Amino acid sequence: MVSHSLEKMKDLDRKDPLREKRKEFSLPKGKIYLDGNSLGCLPKATVTRVNDVVTWEWGEDLITSWNKAEWINLPARVGEQIARLIGAKADEVVAADSTSVNLFKVLSAALKMQSGRTKIISEKGNFPTDLYMMQGLIEQLGGQHELVMVDDDKVLDHLDDDVAVLSLTHVNYKSGQFYDMAAITKAAQDKGIMVIWDLSHSAGALPVDLNGANADFAVGCGYKYLNGGPGAPAFLYVASRHHDKAQPPLSGWMGHAAPFEFDRDYRPADGIKRHLCGTPPVIGMSALEESLKVFDDVDMKKLRKKSVALTDLFIALVEEKCADYGFELASPREASVRGSQVSFSHKDGFAIMQALIDHGVVGDFRAPDIVRFGFTPLYVGYEDVWNAVLILEKIMKKDIWKQDKYHVKSAVT
Amino acid sequence: MVSHSLEKMKDLDRKDPLREKRKEFSLPKGKIYLDGNSLGCLPKATVTRVNDVVTWEWGEDLITSWNKAEWINLPARVGEQIARLIGAKADEVVAADSTSVNLFKVLSAALKMQSGRTKIISEKGNFPTDLYMMQGLIEQLGGQHELVMVDDDKVLDHLDDDVAVLSLTHVNYKSGQFYDMAAITKAAQDKGIMVIWDLSHSAGALPVDLNGANADFAVGCGYKYLNGGPGAPAFLYVASRHHDKAQPPLSGWMGHAAPFEFDRDYRPADGIKRHLCGTPPVIGMSALEESLKVFDDVDMKKLRKKSVALTDLFIALVEEKCADYGFELASPREASVRGSQVSFSHKDGFAIMQALIDHGVVGDFRAPDIVRFGFTPLYVGYEDVWNAVLILEKIMKKDIWKQDKYHVKSAVT
Repeated sequence: MVSHSLEKMKDLDRKDPLREKRKEFSLPKGKIYLDGNSLGCLPKATVTRVNDVVTWEWGEDLITSWNKAEWINLPARVGEQIARLIGAKADEVVAADSTSVNLFKVLSAALKMQSGRTKIISEKGNFPTDLYMMQGLIEQLGGQHELVMVDDDKVLDHLDDDVAVLSLTHVNYKSGQFYDMAAITKAAQDKGIMVIWDLSHSAGALPVDLNGANADFAVGCGYKYLNGGPGAPAFLYVASRHHDKAQPPLSGWMGHAAPFEFDRDYRPADGIKRHLCGTPPVIGMSALEESLKVFDDVDMKKLRKKSVALTDLFIALVEEKCADYGFELASPREASVRGSQVSFSHKDGFAIMQALIDHGVVGDFRAPDIVRFGFTPLYVGYEDVWNAVLILEKIMKKDIWKQDKYHVKSAVT
Repeated sequence: MVSHSLEKMKDLDRKDPLREKRKEFSLPKGKIYLDGNSLGCLPKATVTRVNDVVTWEWGEDLITSWNKAEWINLPARVGEQIARLIGAKADEVVAADSTSVNLFKVLSAALKMQSGRTKIISEKGNFPTDLYMMQGLIEQLGGQHELVMVDDDKVLDHLDDDVAVLSLTHVNYKSGQFYDMAAITKAAQDKGIMVIWDLSHSAGALPVDLNGANADFAVGCGYKYLNGGPGAPAFLYVASRHHDKAQPPLSGWMGHAAPFEFDRDYRPADGIKRHLCGTPPVIGMSALEESLKVFDDVDMKKLRKKSVALTDLFIALVEEKCADYGFELASPREASVRGSQVSFSHKDGFAIMQALIDHGVVGDFRAPDIVRFGFTPLYVGYEDVWNAVLILEKIMKKDIWKQDKYHVKSAVT
């Protein structure tokens, strides 16, 4: 067992090469925020930027801001910022719509390119909205396709000539376990299958190399590790080799070759832009753009190293200090397949998480029994991890979680 | 000819029952803004609201704001605000996604309900993105449907038993002419056709009565007369009689019956909520919610009366003062079929509009030859109209528009 102490934690923080990054965030007062995998913290610069967009770009310059402030290029500009974080070329990514809508777009495009093949393979434990979108699309297309949901470790067994698309979330939202993107992509492509990766829990959390994995399509979320704000625009990646063939089902004017010529007939723009649809949400997308600047000088390898250290430490400390309280690790013990989060299962997980939140440690609960803790290396430190576990220990030791008030369910949990 | 004078204008402004509303907006300094039909002006309260959402709800309360600030109910709350303005029941409207995406949703749902019928009728001069979305959906569904684009005054001639859906924009974006919603809806429904109304240029601009017209579906834009900010979330209406049958193709988790139970299978929520898809764009939707409060005490009949007075006045003044310069009215002369905008055609329209903008009168140009002026009764006054026309007269009389700089095209025009 590692020997831990508050002093040691402070020392680790002092030596942390990402330590200064924390100062770029407005962190909630008196709280240890371990839920950046649900909603990332607010970069300080984003407050000013949003205010400027509202007050000046909208309020004063109004419609001229489409040119003057280059609102029109926001989706491509933000796409370029994200591309760097996920191993894509600058012109392979755009910011647009929600993750769900973007999944619909690329899945529809991929099925069209794979006509003759009828199956979509996904994982039973995939994030539900991904599964729902697949189901909705299949229904919409008249039911000639079939969604096969398999166990996470059986994906490779189901890849055959009937499979059109394999659609997976890279890092599982519950366990934090991640797939070997390159190996799975290759195995699928060897059978003529296209792969869609949902990077919602990967982008900004660990190095992703879409090009290195020869990935076909990807989507992801702007408000988790990318810190873009609640309901931030999502993103979408299409490998450049598919640019000409991938047809957007949501063929709106922003994806038109010449949106301001007001032609009567749709002509898709070249490249990734055709996957844009309606008018971009300027305020939210400006917030995302500003927030992403935090990553400008971040070395993703260093970020990953810290992420592993934080999650390793959290596991070790919980298992050391809360050994008697029935927590079971629900994330991989092996850091090499674990994202930037740690989950434990506990039959009283709901109440324990409510008590934790009430005592300043913000994680979240995922039914039926998962307490989930996200570690965003940009603003979470070693001392935070130490303090969080001490609070968890207190809540368990003193039966604090048994209080009635921690058993009341609310709309969103 | 009416006798006009600056004094008369000032008098009209003094007597205007909506005059005080103007003070609720942050209007661009030194400009006469006649482009609220493209991007509505900024309500002052929205600046503070957005800043609060970013700084406190996101920055400080983070994930707890889904409950505490009721982010989760934003789409329904904003839908309810809009419902009042468009003659719908509170639970028939939600705010979500973009107008284009929402059109795709309701058109897909309507086609499903109309199986056996293969034609979609729309108008040649419909806003292009609406036509593009129809084309994309038809392509996606394998081409068994056909889009028939007809002349705006020939719509009724094309309604037959093969027609599944009639999809029209209520107020035309170019001419400002509007359809008789009740009469056209009835004519279509008499033949078993469902009707989708795009209210982008109607909502907030004139009284709309969807229920009174027995409308089936509608969509619309949040950033024009609703003043929700650039790229604001759009809205979507489904008549309650269709709630059980209308299937969302974009079946995301926010439209699930129990989004936070994380079920594996999609079960649509009851009612209008099933037409939500991904996580709502909280910052932009909060801006829209705040902006809509401006309408709380507005009598839409008074607003319409002022709108007619402003547009009548503008037409009369342009025809009086710019009679010799080749402008031709491209909007209906008859106010009863004219929305809150006035368009003129002019072969040099592009340069004239650039010169106008440069001289503080902001309208916009629509290819090939339309200069378009929007009159938002909440913040445009009679004196504004007077001054705008005087500036137009000067630009024409002194050939100012002929300067080279007014002939340069930019990305968005």
